[in-house]
Amino acid sequence: MERYEIAIIGTGPAGLSAAITATIRNKKILLIGNQFLSEKVEKAHTINNYLGLPNVTGKELQEAFLQHLKELDITITETKVNTIYALGEYFVIDCGDNTYEATSVILATGLSVAKPFKGELENIGKGVSYCATCDAQFYKNKVAAVVGFSQEEESEAVFLSEIADKVLYFPMYKKDGSLGDNIVICEEKPQSIEKEEQKICLITEQSKYFVDGIFLLRDSVAVQQLVPGLKLVGNLVEVDRQMQTNLKGLFACGDITGAPYQYIKSAGEGNVAALSAVSYLNKKK
Amino acid sequence: MERYEIAIIGTGPAGLSAAITATIRNKKILLIGNQFLSEKVEKAHTINNYLGLPNVTGKELQEAFLQHLKELDITITETKVNTIYALGEYFVIDCGDNTYEATSVILATGLSVAKPFKGELENIGKGVSYCATCDAQFYKNKVAAVVGFSQEEESEAVFLSEIADKVLYFPMYKKDGSLGDNIVICEEKPQSIEKEEQKICLITEQSKYFVDGIFLLRDSVAVQQLVPGLKLVGNLVEVDRQMQTNLKGLFACGDITGAPYQYIKSAGEGNVAALSAVSYLNKKK
Repeated sequence: MERYEIAIIGTGPAGLSAAITATIRNKKILLIGNQFLSEKVEKAHTINNYLGLPNVTGKELQEAFLQHLKELDITITETKVNTIYALGEYFVIDCGDNTYEATSVILATGLSVAKPFKGELENIGKGVSYCATCDAQFYKNKVAAVVGFSQEEESEAVFLSEIADKVLYFPMYKKDGSLGDNIVICEEKPQSIEKEEQKICLITEQSKYFVDGIFLLRDSVAVQQLVPGLKLVGNLVEVDRQMQTNLKGLFACGDITGAPYQYIKSAGEGNVAALSAVSYLNKKK
Repeated sequence: MERYEIAIIGTGPAGLSAAITATIRNKKILLIGNQFLSEKVEKAHTINNYLGLPNVTGKELQEAFLQHLKELDITITETKVNTIYALGEYFVIDCGDNTYEATSVILATGLSVAKPFKGELENIGKGVSYCATCDAQFYKNKVAAVVGFSQEEESEAVFLSEIADKVLYFPMYKKDGSLGDNIVICEEKPQSIEKEEQKICLITEQSKYFVDGIFLLRDSVAVQQLVPGLKLVGNLVEVDRQMQTNLKGLFACGDITGAPYQYIKSAGEGNVAALSAVSYLNKKK
């Protein structure tokens, strides 16, 4: 498998700034994110404190960022990262249907707005999973609950239903119509998760659902379970002024490292993280 | 005396970013620096990693920054800061011919390239001074040595010579012509400073000059003596991730806080420093 020198996760200002600096420093990068970069940028009304670009709309800033990527021939890999494993000498980035290797990683995923459910984090791997594509094979003759945070997640539920006996689908958005014969749409809001003997239980206000497994399908994976062993403070990644985390070769920048949540702050940190990664790579040589 | 809410010292990317964010947050600011902003920006050949402004020349970046200031009606006060005194509730900014007060201060002066002379820092106030305009009155019937780092400093030497008996002028640049009757131009490079009994002594390779006082006139004052009590690491200001220094209400950002020396890093830190100052001001209310 080819190994990237720097994998950058996230295409907000932090990830993009890291990507352009790493590219200028001739590093082989993998930039994982979204072709539209960042909703938080795109949907901003007006931004007035991004020095050098007075009074821009979110759309204009997005356009300027895209132009910058284009001039440096930087491409974006669209995929969802499930887990990043720090193996000492390098990192494995598990994206479900694909896996990447990189010598260093820059986390720039933004602030995960999703608050985990009560009982969620304790039961990862004990019934709670985040990737239906990865784990569907274990659900032959079994029943799974799927909590879908957006319409895009429905295809994963459908895939799971082709193997499992039954899928209970809890849409966290306004859902019309059905998804298939053995998918039951449950219009109840999940509140917590409990382990009871062999079964795992999804609890809503109205009821308790005992199932074989629970899939929580969010747009992005909560940082708490993205990188095993990563030191956090609340739901933020702890970094020093060089953007180094507690894991050697892993850097973080942007909103994920804490307030203020500002575009130019994120861009500045992305630059620092990239140069720290470059220096880390140079020392390994 | 009117008191500013935030005084920002420096007009590189860090100071400017702080100024625009503080202005947007409706704070009454004093921005001290240069109408041309920053030599380091202006003279840059091409900058390719300032996210959103691909492939700009230093001149173009300077122009973009000036435009940003203009749109927000931010003006620059051109003066040289000699000393900033932290008085607890507020700061006094001593600029020689003028003095300002501010509730909080953001230091964004960049990296001071001037290495102090051997013996300089130990003798501040004991014969070594940085402001001829301030101290000239004490030199009636006395002899002063002036080390001028650029032509702009000559007027200070002339002013001093109108009061002192004699001025020895050591130009640190190529100097043609004379400055006046009682100013002796000494074409020798100063190397160190020593205190000997009542006199202070400027030592060059060729000779020793015993005088009543030595004036070191640089473009900017070394950070070591700009703010009494400020905690440094080498010639850098120690800050935390919120850009807070060891002195309450005093923040620092940009090159003065350490590597990497990058425009976008400085701009990001300026934004953080400004928001930390805003939060400091709010807490004081």
